[in-house]
Amino acid sequence: MKRALGVCYYPEQWNETVWEEDARRMAELGLTYVRIAEFAWSRMEPEPGRYDWDWLDRSIETLGRHGLKVVLGTPTATPPRWMLDKWPDMLAVDSLGHQRGFGSRRHYDFSHRGYRQDCAKIVTEMAVRYGKNPHVAAWQTDNEYACHKTVLSYSEAAKSAFQDWLAQRYQSIDALNRSWGNVFWSMEYRDFSEIGLPNLTVTEPNPAWVMDFRRFASEEVVSFNRLQTEIIRKHSPAPISHNYMGQVTDFDHFDVGDDLEIATWDAYPIGFLSDRGFASDAHKRHFLRQGDPDFQAFHHDLYRAVGARRSGKDAVGGRWWVMEQQPGPVNWAPWNPDPLPGMARLWAWEAFAHGAEVVSYFRWRQAPFAQETMHAGILRPDSAPAPAYEEVARVARELKDLPDVAGTKAHVALVFDYKSDWAWTTQPQGRDFSYFRLAFDTYRAFRRLGLDIDILPPDTSDLTAYKIVALPGVATLTPAMKAALADYKGLVLAGPRTNAKTEDFATPIPLPPNLPGLQATVARVESFPPDVTVPLALGGHFKHWREKVESPHTVEMTLDGFPALIRQGNVHYLCGWADDEALDRIVTSLALETKLKIQHMPQGLRRRTSGDWTFLINYNPHAVTHDGITIPAADVHWSRS
Amino acid sequence: MKRALGVCYYPEQWNETVWEEDARRMAELGLTYVRIAEFAWSRMEPEPGRYDWDWLDRSIETLGRHGLKVVLGTPTATPPRWMLDKWPDMLAVDSLGHQRGFGSRRHYDFSHRGYRQDCAKIVTEMAVRYGKNPHVAAWQTDNEYACHKTVLSYSEAAKSAFQDWLAQRYQSIDALNRSWGNVFWSMEYRDFSEIGLPNLTVTEPNPAWVMDFRRFASEEVVSFNRLQTEIIRKHSPAPISHNYMGQVTDFDHFDVGDDLEIATWDAYPIGFLSDRGFASDAHKRHFLRQGDPDFQAFHHDLYRAVGARRSGKDAVGGRWWVMEQQPGPVNWAPWNPDPLPGMARLWAWEAFAHGAEVVSYFRWRQAPFAQETMHAGILRPDSAPAPAYEEVARVARELKDLPDVAGTKAHVALVFDYKSDWAWTTQPQGRDFSYFRLAFDTYRAFRRLGLDIDILPPDTSDLTAYKIVALPGVATLTPAMKAALADYKGLVLAGPRTNAKTEDFATPIPLPPNLPGLQATVARVESFPPDVTVPLALGGHFKHWREKVESPHTVEMTLDGFPALIRQGNVHYLCGWADDEALDRIVTSLALETKLKIQHMPQGLRRRTSGDWTFLINYNPHAVTHDGITIPAADVHWSRS
Amino acid sequence: MKRALGVCYYPEQWNETVWEEDARRMAELGLTYVRIAEFAWSRMEPEPGRYDWDWLDRSIETLGRHGLKVVLGTPTATPPRWMLDKWPDMLAVDSLGHQRGFGSRRHYDFSHRGYRQDCAKIVTEMAVRYGKNPHVAAWQTDNEYACHKTVLSYSEAAKSAFQDWLAQRYQSIDALNRSWGNVFWSMEYRDFSEIGLPNLTVTEPNPAWVMDFRRFASEEVVSFNRLQTEIIRKHSPAPISHNYMGQVTDFDHFDVGDDLEIATWDAYPIGFLSDRGFASDAHKRHFLRQGDPDFQAFHHDLYRAVGARRSGKDAVGGRWWVMEQQPGPVNWAPWNPDPLPGMARLWAWEAFAHGAEVVSYFRWRQAPFAQETMHAGILRPDSAPAPAYEEVARVARELKDLPDVAGTKAHVALVFDYKSDWAWTTQPQGRDFSYFRLAFDTYRAFRRLGLDIDILPPDTSDLTAYKIVALPGVATLTPAMKAALADYKGLVLAGPRTNAKTEDFATPIPLPPNLPGLQATVARVESFPPDVTVPLALGGHFKHWREKVESPHTVEMTLDGFPALIRQGNVHYLCGWADDEALDRIVTSLALETKLKIQHMPQGLRRRTSGDWTFLINYNPHAVTHDGITIPAADVHWSRS
Ligand SMILES: [Zn+2]
Ligand SMILES: [Zn+2]
Ligand SMILES: [Zn+2]
Repeated sequence: MKRALGVCYYPEQWNETVWEEDARRMAELGLTYVRIAEFAWSRMEPEPGRYDWDWLDRSIETLGRHGLKVVLGTPTATPPRWMLDKWPDMLAVDSLGHQRGFGSRRHYDFSHRGYRQDCAKIVTEMAVRYGKNPHVAAWQTDNEYACHKTVLSYSEAAKSAFQDWLAQRYQSIDALNRSWGNVFWSMEYRDFSEIGLPNLTVTEPNPAWVMDFRRFASEEVVSFNRLQTEIIRKHSPAPISHNYMGQVTDFDHFDVGDDLEIATWDAYPIGFLSDRGFASDAHKRHFLRQGDPDFQAFHHDLYRAVGARRSGKDAVGGRWWVMEQQPGPVNWAPWNPDPLPGMARLWAWEAFAHGAEVVSYFRWRQAPFAQETMHAGILRPDSAPAPAYEEVARVARELKDLPDVAGTKAHVALVFDYKSDWAWTTQPQGRDFSYFRLAFDTYRAFRRLGLDIDILPPDTSDLTAYKIVALPGVATLTPAMKAALADYKGLVLAGPRTNAKTEDFATPIPLPPNLPGLQATVARVESFPPDVTVPLALGGHFKHWREKVESPHTVEMTLDGFPALIRQGNVHYLCGWADDEALDRIVTSLALETKLKIQHMPQGLRRRTSGDWTFLINYNPHAVTHDGITIPAADVHWSRS
Repeated sequence: MKRALGVCYYPEQWNETVWEEDARRMAELGLTYVRIAEFAWSRMEPEPGRYDWDWLDRSIETLGRHGLKVVLGTPTATPPRWMLDKWPDMLAVDSLGHQRGFGSRRHYDFSHRGYRQDCAKIVTEMAVRYGKNPHVAAWQTDNEYACHKTVLSYSEAAKSAFQDWLAQRYQSIDALNRSWGNVFWSMEYRDFSEIGLPNLTVTEPNPAWVMDFRRFASEEVVSFNRLQTEIIRKHSPAPISHNYMGQVTDFDHFDVGDDLEIATWDAYPIGFLSDRGFASDAHKRHFLRQGDPDFQAFHHDLYRAVGARRSGKDAVGGRWWVMEQQPGPVNWAPWNPDPLPGMARLWAWEAFAHGAEVVSYFRWRQAPFAQETMHAGILRPDSAPAPAYEEVARVARELKDLPDVAGTKAHVALVFDYKSDWAWTTQPQGRDFSYFRLAFDTYRAFRRLGLDIDILPPDTSDLTAYKIVALPGVATLTPAMKAALADYKGLVLAGPRTNAKTEDFATPIPLPPNLPGLQATVARVESFPPDVTVPLALGGHFKHWREKVESPHTVEMTLDGFPALIRQGNVHYLCGWADDEALDRIVTSLALETKLKIQHMPQGLRRRTSGDWTFLINYNPHAVTHDGITIPAADVHWSRS
Repeated sequence: MKRALGVCYYPEQWNETVWEEDARRMAELGLTYVRIAEFAWSRMEPEPGRYDWDWLDRSIETLGRHGLKVVLGTPTATPPRWMLDKWPDMLAVDSLGHQRGFGSRRHYDFSHRGYRQDCAKIVTEMAVRYGKNPHVAAWQTDNEYACHKTVLSYSEAAKSAFQDWLAQRYQSIDALNRSWGNVFWSMEYRDFSEIGLPNLTVTEPNPAWVMDFRRFASEEVVSFNRLQTEIIRKHSPAPISHNYMGQVTDFDHFDVGDDLEIATWDAYPIGFLSDRGFASDAHKRHFLRQGDPDFQAFHHDLYRAVGARRSGKDAVGGRWWVMEQQPGPVNWAPWNPDPLPGMARLWAWEAFAHGAEVVSYFRWRQAPFAQETMHAGILRPDSAPAPAYEEVARVARELKDLPDVAGTKAHVALVFDYKSDWAWTTQPQGRDFSYFRLAFDTYRAFRRLGLDIDILPPDTSDLTAYKIVALPGVATLTPAMKAALADYKGLVLAGPRTNAKTEDFATPIPLPPNLPGLQATVARVESFPPDVTVPLALGGHFKHWREKVESPHTVEMTLDGFPALIRQGNVHYLCGWADDEALDRIVTSLALETKLKIQHMPQGLRRRTSGDWTFLINYNPHAVTHDGITIPAADVHWSRS
C-alpha cells in the first residue's frame, strides 16, 4: 500500500465556479484523497424529506475527473435546524441540567431514538446513491465523536436508555444494589425506573453508578456508529472510517474501532499542547510553535491499535490515517501561534514513520466566514498559497522516494485502557491523578530511549511478541489479559493502581494488585499536592500518588522507608507515580535486561523505525546533533537501518 | 466520669456472619461505644410503612453481648429513594436554582413540612423500640447538619417557610420595609407573600434580607433537630447528641446545643487542613500528615461550650465527644495523605486533654464499595488491622493511668458568634474578610502563649471567671453581653468590627463601637489586598482590614498616623486585623498585666491542662525540646502540674 | 458656561425633618446641582396607577429654596415589586438561562414591550409634572445602562425582538444565511422564527450571529432610552443626560449620545482600578488609594465625544459631567481602600481640566442601611462631615479663580469604536486580546508624552483638525472614516487588526487592511501567551498578537524577521500589539515628525490643557518635580500657558 496525501474540502462553502480550479490545484499539489460532505446535511436535505444530491454529484464528479479519490462523510454531526421541530428533546443536556442548543455542531444526544432513525435515513440515502460511485474511496461516519464533551448527556433520553441498559446488565434490581453497594447511605433502589443520572447530587455520587453511566455512554457511541456502518456496508464496498480526536477518552475507541476498517484522527499538535496539555509552562514555551514531541506519536500508536480491531490484525498492522492535519494556526486553542516553518511537513513524516497510510490536511482553503474564519488552510481565503502549501508539495515529492506504508516490530508494549481513565476520573483520590497522564508518562519514558512502542487494548490475549509490557494504572485486568500475563515470559511493569478494582468498581479482596506470580498487598494509599514528592532511594521521586505495599520482594525503597519497586520473577510493581528521573532509570534497566538497543534521545528529538528506515524527528526550534547526524530545527532525517 | 474510646460501625454493610467477631475484636481493642444506624433508613423501612427492625435488634444485641454500648443514630440524613415519590419537592435547591438530587446523602430540605412528618415517624418508631434498650447508651440525631452546604436552600418550601418566619418576626410589612431599608432602590414590599429568596438577583441583594434568610435557615435546623429530640426524650432516658463538623458556621450550633445533652464533632485534621484551611502553603506542607496544631483544639473548646448549653453549666463543664476521629487517609479532601505514625493516638489525647468524654474513630472497617471506598478505618477492607489499630490499642492501655474526664480553669475567654460569621460573609467589604479566621487568629495567639482558653457564646451574661475576654468581630453585642461587659473588671480585647451593626444590620448611630466605658468612634473603614499591609508603630501590621477611629485614648499608632489600639480603663479596641506578630505582642502584654503564667510555645508544640495534668502535644514531624522535655515527632507528653 | 459642583441625594431615604438642613449645608458647601429621584419609583407609584408626588414636590421645593438646581432622574432602573405581578417575564435571563430576580436593581429586560409601556407612563407623569419646574435644571434617564451586565439577555422577550430585528435587517432569510455563512456546519435557517439566541450552544456559536445579537442588544438600549427622551422633550426644555459607567462597552454610547444633550459618567477611580483594571499588581499597589492615572482621563475624553453627538459639535465641544464622583471608600470592589487625602479634590480638577461642566459627588450622606451601607459620602451616616467634605469645600473656593468651562485644541485623535470591542470579544483568537485595552494602551502612550487627546467616534468624517490619528483594532472602517482617511494629510497609525472584518464579520478579500494609500496584506496572524513576546529590531516587543504582513513598505522589522511597522506616505500600520516601550518609541517619532511639543511625563504625573491653563496632576503617593515645578502627592498644579 502506498503512502498518500489528502485534504478536507467543503465544496458547498464555495461558488461552484471555483470547484474545477480547486480540483486541478489539488491534483497538481500531489494530493490523492479529498474528504467532503461531513457537515453538509442542510444542503443534502434542505427540508425534511426533500433531498438535493445534484451539487454533491457534481462535486464528486469534478474531483474524480482530476483523479482525486473522495472520502465521503455522513453529516450526522450537524443535523439541520428543522430537525429540532421534529425532536425538540434530541439535544444533549449538560451536567447542570441545561439543554445544549442549536447553532454550532454536535447538537444531538447519542441516546435519542428519534434522531437515530433520521440518521439512519440520511445515511441510507447516501449509501444507496454513492455506495458504488467509483470516486468514493472511503467513508467517514459523523465527525469527531465526543468533541465538545458530547458523550455524557443528562437528558431524559439518556436516562431512559440508561435504565434499560442497567436492566439488561443486572437483570434484577437487587443485583444492582449489591453490585453498587447501595446499602451505603440508604441508596437502595426498588426498581430500575427509580435510577436517575449521576449529576446534581448533594455530594459525590456512588462511583459504581458513575462508572456504569460511563460504560453506558460509551456503548451509546458504539451503537450510534454501528447503526451507520451496518447501513453503509450493505451498499458499499469502500472501507469505513471515523476521525477521532486527541486525548479524548469519554468513549472506548477500541469498541468503536471494532466496526471500522480504518481509524483516523485529527492531529492539531499546537492547539493540543495549548488546550489539553498538562505540561509545564517551560515545556509549553519551548514547543510553542511545534507541539509536544510525544503527543502525536502516542496517538499514532494508539490509533494504529484501534485501526487493527476490525481486521483482527495485530497492533502493527492496523490501518490508520491522519484525517485532519494542522497546516497553520488554528482558531480554537487558548492561544494560537503560527507553526515554525517545516512543521506541516514534519508532522506528516512523523505520521508516515508510525505507519500512516494517508495524511490529510485540514483544510484546503481558509474560510472567510463562520466559526473557523481564523483557522488556516493550505490556501489563504484569497486562494493564494498559505505557507503550508509549499511544505505539502515537498512531502508529495519526497513520497516518491519512500512510497510504501510500512510498520515496525516494536519490542515494547503499553496497555491503554479507556475504562481506566473513567475509573480514575471518577475516583482520583487526589486532585492531580490522571490515568491518561500516567500512561503518557510511561510512554514517553520509552520514547526517550529511542524505542518503538506498540499500544495494546486491555483485552489483548497474547503478549509474546514483546520483551517488555507496561500496564500502569489499568484499573481492572480483563480475564484475557490475566491469562496473557500468566503465560508471559518478558518483563512486566505494573503499578501504581494496576488491578485495583473489581469489575463492580469495588476493592478486591484479597487486596490489590493480585497479579499472577506476584506476592504483594497494597495496604494503604496516599495522594499529595504537587509540591510534595517522595524521594526514592535510588534516585527520582514519586509524585501525586504513593502506595504502601507489603511484599517480601522489594527491590527498591523510598527514602522514607517504604517499598518503591517490587519484583518477583518477571513482574515489577511500581508503588507510586514515578517522575521522569525515576522512570528513566527503571525503564532503562528493564531495557538493558532484555538487551534492547537503546539511545538516550536529546530533548525534543525523537526516533521511529518504519520498515527498514529510521526517522529522526527534531521538534526543537534549533538544530540538534545526535549520533553524528545534525537535524535542523523542525526537520526530519531518515536513513536505511 | 471515665474517658472512653469508641468506633463507628455499619452492621448493615457486612455479612451478618462477621458481626460477632467484629464485636469481639472491638471489645478486645478496648472500645466502649459503637455508633450505628445513622444511614440505614432503607434497611429500617425498605418500603413506605413497612419496617424491618430484626437486623438492628440482632446487631444491638450482638454488640451488647460483648459489653459494648450503642450510640443509636436516627437515619434522617439519608431518606430512601421511595421518599421522593411521595415528596418530589423535598429536595433542596442550590443558589442557581438547580434541584439537588438523590444519590448521595443529605438530600432533603430542612423546610419541607412533609419530610419532617416522615422524620417524626421513623424517629418515633426507633425511640419506642430502642428507647429503653439497656445497650443503647446515647442517641444521635441525623448526621452532620450543614455538611455539603445543605443549610441554605432556595426551594419553594424554603420560600414559604421564610415568608411565614418574616411575618412572625415583623408582624407588619411596613416594619420589615423600615427594618431592611427597602426604600433603597425601590425594594419595598406590599405583602410578605411578595418576598422571595435572595439568590439570582441582578446585583447584590439587600444584606438585611440575606441576614434574615440566614437567621431563618439556622432556625430551621434548630426546629428540625428539636422535632427529633422531643420525640426521643418521650421514650428514652439516654442522652442525645449530634455530630457537628469542623469550620461549619451555616447554623448556630449554640441554638442546636440547647436541645442536646452532648455535643460531638467529627475531627478530620488532615482533610480539614487540606480542604478548608486558609493557611499558607508552607504551613500546609509542614503539617501535611498531622493537621493544623490549633484547629482541633479550637473546635474542642467550641463544642465544649456548645455541649454546656442544655445543662446550663459553664463552658468548662459541657459534655462533648469526638464522634468521628480520622484514623488514616480520608477520601474527600483535595489530596489525602497518610497521617504520620502516632497521629491517631495524638489526636485522641489532645481531645481528652480538652475534656472529651469519648473519642470514637470513624470507622471500624474500610468499606470496599460506594463513596467511601478510599476512607481508611481501624481495619482494612480485608479485616486485617490498619495502622490505626495499634495506636488505638495504645490509647486504651494509657487510659488506665489517666482514666478521668477532667476540665481546666481557663483564664482567657474568646467569644464566638455564628451570626457574626453570617454578617461578615454577607458584607465582607473586602474579599479576604473572614470572621471565622479573625476569631481563630485570636485564639491561636493565646495558644502560642501556652494558655488554656474557653470559648463563650455571644449571650454569655457573666464574664467574672476570666482575666481576659476577647471579642473580635462580634457584629452585634447582645444585651446580656453588653451588661456583662459593663460589670466586667478584667481586660477586654475588642475590635475590629465589634458591635458594628444593629440587630437590623444597620450602621448604629452614634457610630460603632459603642462599647461600655470606651469613648471611640469608627469614622471610616478600609479593606486592602493581601499584599498590602499597614505597619504598626510598635511592630507587626494590620492586614486585610483597618478602621480609622477617633478617640482620645489612643495607646498605639499605625506608621501612617492613625490609631492602632485604643484603651480606656480595662477596654481595648484594636483598629484593624492584626497579624500574628502584632497579636503576639498585644496579647502578651495583656497576659502579663493580668499576671497569667505564659510560655512562648515553639512552632507546632501546644500545651493544655486537664485536671492537674499538663499535656504537651507535638504536631511537628520532628522532635521538639521545650522546658527541658523532649517530645518526639507526633507524640504527646503529660506530667502532673 | 461656569464650572460647578453637585451631589447625589436621596430625600426619600431620610426623615423629612432633615431636608431643610441638608439643603442649607449643600448650598453652604458651594454645591450647585443635586441629582435626585432615580431610584424612587416605589415612592412615586406605591401601587399600580396610584401616584404620590407630594414628597417629591416638597423635596424639589426645599432644594430650590436654597438656590440648588435639581437633576431629576427617571426611576426606570428600579421598577417596584408589584411590576412583576403584571409582567412576570420582564426579567432578564443570564447566558445559562437563569432568570435574574427582583431584590436589587436593573431587574428588567430592555426588550420587554410591556415594561417599556410602563416606563413611558411613569416618565410621562414626571415630565408633565416637573417639565417646567423652575428648579429642575436637567434630566437623567434611568441609571447606568449596562451596569451589572444587563445588556445581553437571553429571554423570550429578547428572542422575539431579535427575530424582528433580523427580519428588518436582512429582509430575506437567504440573505441572512449568506451573510452569516450558515452553510458552514449546516446552520442554515428556513425562517426568522427559527433563530434563537447565541447562548448554551454545544461549542462556539457563529460569530456573525453573536455580532448581530450584540448590535441588536445595543440598539435595544438606544430605543429604550429614546422612548424616554422623546417624552421628556415634549414637556420640558431642560437638557437630558444619562450617567454612563467606566469601561462599559456592551452598548454603543455614541448611539445613545445622539439622543442626549449631556453625557455624564460615574467616576470611581479606586473601585475601577480594583475591579476592572488589567494592570499589573505592582501598578495596582502603587495607585491603590488614587486610581489609575489615565483611566479617568480616557473616559473624560471619551464622554466628551459622546456628549457632542446630539449638537453635532466637534469632540472638543461636547457637554459632559461627572455625575457620580467617588468621595471615599466604596463598597463594591474586591477591596475598598480609603483614598489618599486630596484625591476627592484632584479627581474633580482633572475632570474640569478635561472640560467637565459639573462634578457631582456620590453621595451626600452615607446610608446606614441596604446595599450601600459601606459606601462613603460627603457626610458620615451620623451627618458629621466625612473627609471629602473639606476637599469639596476647597474645590468650591478654587473655582472662583478658574470659573469657566474650557476645552483645548488637541492635535492627536484616537478612534474608539464600541463595535470593535464586540468584534474582538466575540473572536479574540487569543485569550488575552482586548480591544479596550489595545485602545487604552495607545491612549496612554500619547498621554505619557504630555499630549492632549481627542477621542473620536468611528463614523467621523473629517480628520483635518489633527496631526496624528490612531485607530488600532477598529474592526471595520465606516465609509465615512474611509473617505476621511483618503483625504487626510496627517499621520495615521493603524493596526493591528484594523479593518480586518467586513460589515458581515467576514474576512475581506482582498485581505486586510485595505487602507487607502497603503499597499499591505495581512497574510497570517498569531496569538501567544503572556509570557511569550516578539522582540522588535528597534526596541520593545509585540505582546499577545502579531500579524505577518506582506508589503513593500516595511520600515521596521521584528527580530524574527517579519515586518513590524509598515509605512507608505502618511499611513503607518503596526503589525502587532506593541508594548509600552515600542509604543513610546513609535508614538514619539510620529509626534516629532509632526512637530508636536512633547514632554516625557514621570510615572503617575499627567498633563492637560484647558483654555489657556495647563494642569499638572500628580497621581503618585509622593511629590514629583517636573519642569522645575514640585507637585505634592495627590495634588494638582495649574498655571497659565
Ligand atoms: Zn531547545
Ligand atoms: Zn518543623
Ligand atoms: Zn442552571
